[in-house]
Amino acid sequence: MTDSSIALSTRDRIITTAAALFAERGYMATSIGDITKDLGLTRGALYFHFTSKAELALEVANKYFEAWGPILEAAEQEGLRGLDTLRWISYRVGVAYREDVVVRAAVRLWRESTEIEADLPAPFVGWIQTTERYLEEELADGRLVEGLDLQKVAWQIVASFFGTQDVSNQLEQRRDLEQRIDTMWEIILRGVRSPDAR
Amino acid sequence: MTDSSIALSTRDRIITTAAALFAERGYMATSIGDITKDLGLTRGALYFHFTSKAELALEVANKYFEAWGPILEAAEQEGLRGLDTLRWISYRVGVAYREDVVVRAAVRLWRESTEIEADLPAPFVGWIQTTERYLEEELADGRLVEGLDLQKVAWQIVASFFGTQDVSNQLEQRRDLEQRIDTMWEIILRGVRSPDAR
Repeated sequence: MTDSSIALSTRDRIITTAAALFAERGYMATSIGDITKDLGLTRGALYFHFTSKAELALEVANKYFEAWGPILEAAEQEGLRGLDTLRWISYRVGVAYREDVVVRAAVRLWRESTEIEADLPAPFVGWIQTTERYLEEELADGRLVEGLDLQKVAWQIVASFFGTQDVSNQLEQRRDLEQRIDTMWEIILRGVRSPDAR
Repeated sequence: MTDSSIALSTRDRIITTAAALFAERGYMATSIGDITKDLGLTRGALYFHFTSKAELALEVANKYFEAWGPILEAAEQEGLRGLDTLRWISYRVGVAYREDVVVRAAVRLWRESTEIEADLPAPFVGWIQTTERYLEEELADGRLVEGLDLQKVAWQIVASFFGTQDVSNQLEQRRDLEQRIDTMWEIILRGVRSPDAR
């Protein structure tokens, strides 16, 4: 191992440990001391990599976006179209919301963003654009009811998914998330697809 | 004014001020000192009414539920049925989410409930039951597609609304909430109503 790969590995460990604490307790309730204690590192060793708790939060938020690339690529291999692709993706994203500590941390950090002295990247916007692209594909295949505003519908699908994982989290720690996503799609697909496409 | 009404009024002022700070900064980032400073009260005066920050949080969460009674009663005067009643209610609830500081505070407190040493009442459960009752009325009127699991659909409507207000809050401070609720109902009503009821 070269020195730089060891440094990288420590860096990753710090991010993962910080993410676990941010996810569990939130940003305000987590101190640098909590993070170094869980890592078994000195503050000096942590400050070699990150200058502040805010910088760590920013890194976690940036890393959140890296979770989606592999899922979107895998979806392309499935040979699905339009909303069927998006639906396939939504279950994988649901698993990430439940099990990926960086994703869970980022969701919590965004809610505390007014308390974080760093400009976190905007949430939702990328997913709304992605969803709109799949809606356009669905439209091109002639499978949508007429007169839909695709941008508004894309926004709504993202918001419905986000509410679904959130309520599932608050009531059941996301244990029932898959069956909730089932019902979400049952309603949405009948709500936007033309009758002969269902 | 009697002594007890003065005491009640101070109590209410404390709750409202605490709610404003909880809504703006969250529970962890708000201290008893912040609350007394905004009130112009001594700590002793506050502790005469509430023994801890956690007790204040519990009071705010309990008060959240009081916001809905007048809206539900007003809805009954509208002469609507089933989902039309629920839809009417949803816009008023949306306004409360945007403008009622106790509602905004409670939503934030639930997210921090693991950090609060009090048993907050469960969120969502009451709204899911209320929604199911309106769905039953809609079903009795023969206006739903066949085969719906009303409990699951009720859960989903509540989650969709909650996601809608949340994404609207995080992206636009809920300024666009009414138009987002419009789209939500456009999709849901086509998703659950039988074609001849739309």
